[in-house]
Amino acid sequence: MNILLIVAYDGTNYYGWQRQSGFVTVQQRLEEALSALYKKEITVRGSSRTDTGVHCMGQGALYKTEQNIPAERLPYAVNAFLPDDIVVNKAYIVDDDFHPQYSVIDKTYEYKIQNADFRNPLLYNYTAFTHYKLDIEKMRRACKYFIGEHDFKAFCASGSDAKTTVRTIYDLSIEKVNDIISIRVRGSGFLYNMVRIIAGTLLYVGLGKIMPQEITDIINSRDRARAGKTLVPNGLTLLEVNYEKIDR
Amino acid sequence: MNILLIVAYDGTNYYGWQRQSGFVTVQQRLEEALSALYKKEITVRGSSRTDTGVHCMGQGALYKTEQNIPAERLPYAVNAFLPDDIVVNKAYIVDDDFHPQYSVIDKTYEYKIQNADFRNPLLYNYTAFTHYKLDIEKMRRACKYFIGEHDFKAFCASGSDAKTTVRTIYDLSIEKVNDIISIRVRGSGFLYNMVRIIAGTLLYVGLGKIMPQEITDIINSRDRARAGKTLVPNGLTLLEVNYEKIDR
Repeated sequence: MNILLIVAYDGTNYYGWQRQSGFVTVQQRLEEALSALYKKEITVRGSSRTDTGVHCMGQGALYKTEQNIPAERLPYAVNAFLPDDIVVNKAYIVDDDFHPQYSVIDKTYEYKIQNADFRNPLLYNYTAFTHYKLDIEKMRRACKYFIGEHDFKAFCASGSDAKTTVRTIYDLSIEKVNDIISIRVRGSGFLYNMVRIIAGTLLYVGLGKIMPQEITDIINSRDRARAGKTLVPNGLTLLEVNYEKIDR
Repeated sequence: MNILLIVAYDGTNYYGWQRQSGFVTVQQRLEEALSALYKKEITVRGSSRTDTGVHCMGQGALYKTEQNIPAERLPYAVNAFLPDDIVVNKAYIVDDDFHPQYSVIDKTYEYKIQNADFRNPLLYNYTAFTHYKLDIEKMRRACKYFIGEHDFKAFCASGSDAKTTVRTIYDLSIEKVNDIISIRVRGSGFLYNMVRIIAGTLLYVGLGKIMPQEITDIINSRDRARAGKTLVPNGLTLLEVNYEKIDR
């Protein structure tokens, strides 16, 4: 039977999601918990590789098992073996042809920037920071140019092994509550560092270094040097992944 | 000249505010930063002893110096020597008779509880948690019984050396945003663990273990065993301290 877990974690203390020898990762901790629960070695496949320091409210983790623990009880059972900064929120029994990446319809990320005179230390691990006053209206006007299917090569870190750099962005919006600016983006999928580079480009728009109407040119240039800088990982949270054949 | 710094910190990685040998505290880190800045040993006196894991947006820290760094530049100068989880937001030059505790008019604390099926790991260091559904309306009705001048001995941890257990609570209110319940309390001063015990008592009210109208009896009993349990420190933040003779 195929099980899909929905997993939330604070990325502060992990070297990202993906298992790598010599570094503690979320995947490793989750596999250890599942192996302890099932008393059998379990490996999982994730829906998204999140980087060191990136947070997550809805990572998908797929594994196979023959043991029948009811799906509604599974989160409690797995959480008993997990550290406090990793929490399973939901479990689904999925079809055999379910794929943790190819069955994805869309993903939603949020990037947070604190814009204030002084940094709030309670938000240090969860926001980028700038004391330069950002022009939110300009940032909002820039959003619409990202929407749609584009070649986002200018917004992809070098070293990516993606076969194509074409992706579709369905929504991109900006909210401001007190001194926290939240950039929320939903898309078909994202290239390596793509959300952090979009956030960095919007930051440059907010600073007046890039005009909103320049975004189309930057996309069309396919030139990474034209976009903004890659913002720090701790401002980023993978909020949600939607899948085919699963009603959430 | 007497300087009052307003200091924010994330208490997660410290053994509280107060300097103690063998443990890293916020006071120690601040004194190290000031001593490095002034190239002379500086000691500070704080307005509140916050416990291990308790956070702060507005601790007051008073010290003397003969060196004249302009108050508006001081936060930037001190922050350059502080770790990321401690931030000075403001500096005031205060009168010679200013006292970090006796000049206090009131203090405001916030206690946060996440009330949901599963814990949000991103809020782990900043909230208490319960999956039992809390009755917010009952908790709100209980608040008014705390307001006023009372002997709060029932809400004081043993081991306190306070001369009197009489304190005045000016405001106590509860807000709920999504699954986060915020208890905010402003008072003349607070006994050891008092806010965490008030929060624990309100939690019991929300669970139906204590009725709102029982609060007066519990206060009058002066019996610690009648009040709720002391909630975890990480849900607590000292938001603000108001002082005589300082306009904020």
